[in-house]
Amino acid sequence: MTAYRNYQPELIQVTYRVLSPTLVDPEKRAKAIALGQTTDTWTPNANSGLAKLKKHTGVVLGVDERPHTEGKPYEYFLTIGFPTANIEDDIPSLLTMIFGKVSLDGLIRVETIELPADFLKQKGPGHGIEGIRKLVGEATKPLAMAIFKPCVGLSPAELGQMFYELALGGMHLVKDDEILPDISLCPAEKRLEAVLKAAEKAKKLTNQTTIYALNLTGRPSGLVSKARALAKLGAPCFLFNVLSYGYGVLEELRGVGVPVMAHPALAGAWCGGADTGFSYATILGTLMRAGGADIVLFPSSYGTVALPSKDTNQIGDALTKPLEKLKRSFPAPSAGIYPGLVPQILADFGNDCIINAGGGVHGHPKGARAGARAFRQAIDWCMTHRSFAGLSEQIFPELAAALRTWGARPSPR
Amino acid sequence: MTAYRNYQPELIQVTYRVLSPTLVDPEKRAKAIALGQTTDTWTPNANSGLAKLKKHTGVVLGVDERPHTEGKPYEYFLTIGFPTANIEDDIPSLLTMIFGKVSLDGLIRVETIELPADFLKQKGPGHGIEGIRKLVGEATKPLAMAIFKPCVGLSPAELGQMFYELALGGMHLVKDDEILPDISLCPAEKRLEAVLKAAEKAKKLTNQTTIYALNLTGRPSGLVSKARALAKLGAPCFLFNVLSYGYGVLEELRGVGVPVMAHPALAGAWCGGADTGFSYATILGTLMRAGGADIVLFPSSYGTVALPSKDTNQIGDALTKPLEKLKRSFPAPSAGIYPGLVPQILADFGNDCIINAGGGVHGHPKGARAGARAFRQAIDWCMTHRSFAGLSEQIFPELAAALRTWGARPSPR
Repeated sequence: MTAYRNYQPELIQVTYRVLSPTLVDPEKRAKAIALGQTTDTWTPNANSGLAKLKKHTGVVLGVDERPHTEGKPYEYFLTIGFPTANIEDDIPSLLTMIFGKVSLDGLIRVETIELPADFLKQKGPGHGIEGIRKLVGEATKPLAMAIFKPCVGLSPAELGQMFYELALGGMHLVKDDEILPDISLCPAEKRLEAVLKAAEKAKKLTNQTTIYALNLTGRPSGLVSKARALAKLGAPCFLFNVLSYGYGVLEELRGVGVPVMAHPALAGAWCGGADTGFSYATILGTLMRAGGADIVLFPSSYGTVALPSKDTNQIGDALTKPLEKLKRSFPAPSAGIYPGLVPQILADFGNDCIINAGGGVHGHPKGARAGARAFRQAIDWCMTHRSFAGLSEQIFPELAAALRTWGARPSPR
Repeated sequence: MTAYRNYQPELIQVTYRVLSPTLVDPEKRAKAIALGQTTDTWTPNANSGLAKLKKHTGVVLGVDERPHTEGKPYEYFLTIGFPTANIEDDIPSLLTMIFGKVSLDGLIRVETIELPADFLKQKGPGHGIEGIRKLVGEATKPLAMAIFKPCVGLSPAELGQMFYELALGGMHLVKDDEILPDISLCPAEKRLEAVLKAAEKAKKLTNQTTIYALNLTGRPSGLVSKARALAKLGAPCFLFNVLSYGYGVLEELRGVGVPVMAHPALAGAWCGGADTGFSYATILGTLMRAGGADIVLFPSSYGTVALPSKDTNQIGDALTKPLEKLKRSFPAPSAGIYPGLVPQILADFGNDCIINAGGGVHGHPKGARAGARAFRQAIDWCMTHRSFAGLSEQIFPELAAALRTWGARPSPR
């Protein structure tokens, strides 16, 4: 059983998990990846041996041959170091180098990506957790966010009205659904206008800033200029389907100066295969944060669309762990969230998270405003309690109603 | 066993394969996808029932419950129709709608995507097979293409020299490796200049046009203008890593007027999981062609990096079958190709394909020029033969040497 791991933090260090039906020489397989993705090919030729290619050649940093079980595939963890000199200081060329062709070579999965300080310069969230907290005026507690539901087919005025109700209920953020396009029925500019009006009106009553995350869509060549134009009109935040449009656009949006909320749309296609693709933590954690997402949405482990808790914990870690001078991205575990889940969410992610709900707000028996209140109440209550035992229905009527509707899940800790 | 399939060709018709450990009501599951990806959520609310939402609501078009085997998951094929009114006439918003959130919902895979005439207007290759054939002056035979190997770390002059050898050998096309970035050591403009000079010089001797596919990389907001600038300098074709930069950029490149060759980098991440992600035919076939790729590279079923022949056949079909007024994309089965495979490739793809090789050209015992000749000779020979039996070493010396080096695989038909 070979097992070693060297570190060369000036390189892009990628660990792959490789499965093989037959025993392979892991050192040889690792070398094939290191060379094949950089300076070599399956047949050597006159230029292959050139000394000057050496600084562009990938190196094998680690090999970990796992114990084999009869009847199961052989399993190897292989770590390759790639020179930053081979890429353009952006995530698209990084992805092509580390997993372009080799993604097609059987059962191979990117488990971790460690990015060197050199690559991370000028990267990461522009605002981060602290920046978002300042914008909504909440220094310590988890934030509450709602999604427009339904969304496609409604007019700007209807979405403005929906926003008003959610803002009156105290939501810190309200976001478009990721499927809301910029179409003539409901153009981005018009709904921004309607929402900003609603936000202003609500703030006069609540004194609470509610930030709108507008879904940014369109032609890639024009997305940055569109974002700048919408920012001038007052867009406080952009929702962005990073995997539909590319990490390259995310990286450019950082320069616009408006916070970006990354949506995990398509992440199941990149990460859902157990033995292929990327781990969720690399795609929704490491690369979203490096790419500059201030907030990252991902499915929780307990909602309607659920990931294993191992994955959601790793995503949360990747978004918030100390890493060079990068700001932290705000984790926003999502999908099928209702107020009764708040103790569980806080146990898993701590107070630096955004509690995000669609149906769990709008479906409240007393409507969306009450649904928003129920979340704010759940957060307040959970600052000092690990379950809802002893909750006063008089003081928290909307929360009590939500708990009656959907139940609760006490904190496991 | 429920099984039906209705057709509504004005909708975007997507067939998903769903696996479930437990028996589910497939009709209900299909409806949940149709509504969840369009106008509804997991809890209904006041707006959910609005009549005007109906034209934006997905519909269930087909359910096919497969026979169940004890101990295996239950298997369903579900077809949903999505209105084009929900998207922006581009592939990124299409992907978000058909598989954004639902990609994260367990074992679900997009098997086929059928695009309506309405969506396909103004889409598809700008040049197609016929256009590429005209550019290289070859009306009927398969084309031969080589890849720069090695690539990263070499200078423009060295790549120019490599191009010259390959062009003298008769290659119709020569492409950058997909991992070649635009870096100061070898800027795109400089290598274009060096290659164009080499191409001109070679053409004087061979009278054969050899097209260079330049790897187009950079910031998404600038890719189209960069392509235009390079086109002005004479770039005859762009290689493009569509999945690293996004289909949205591919769609915009169509407007530049220069043929685009799509590389399958990262496709293994999107398509490699048997029960998740997308089928290869949707990603490398249907969407590449609709997005405007004139040439599409994909791993063959017999090279160093291999896909199952079922997948490669489906990709080839999707690229070339009659579809509205769309031009056909040129299939370019790749990876580990050597001259001895030509009979097999022609049996699989017919004459409308591009035979693409890196190591199988450069690794020729007599060098790259001879390697290129061997491929051209193999193509000529196979126009009238199904195997290499009876080949004259005097007439085809380079091919004979290649066959001695790497062997051959006679046509199965």
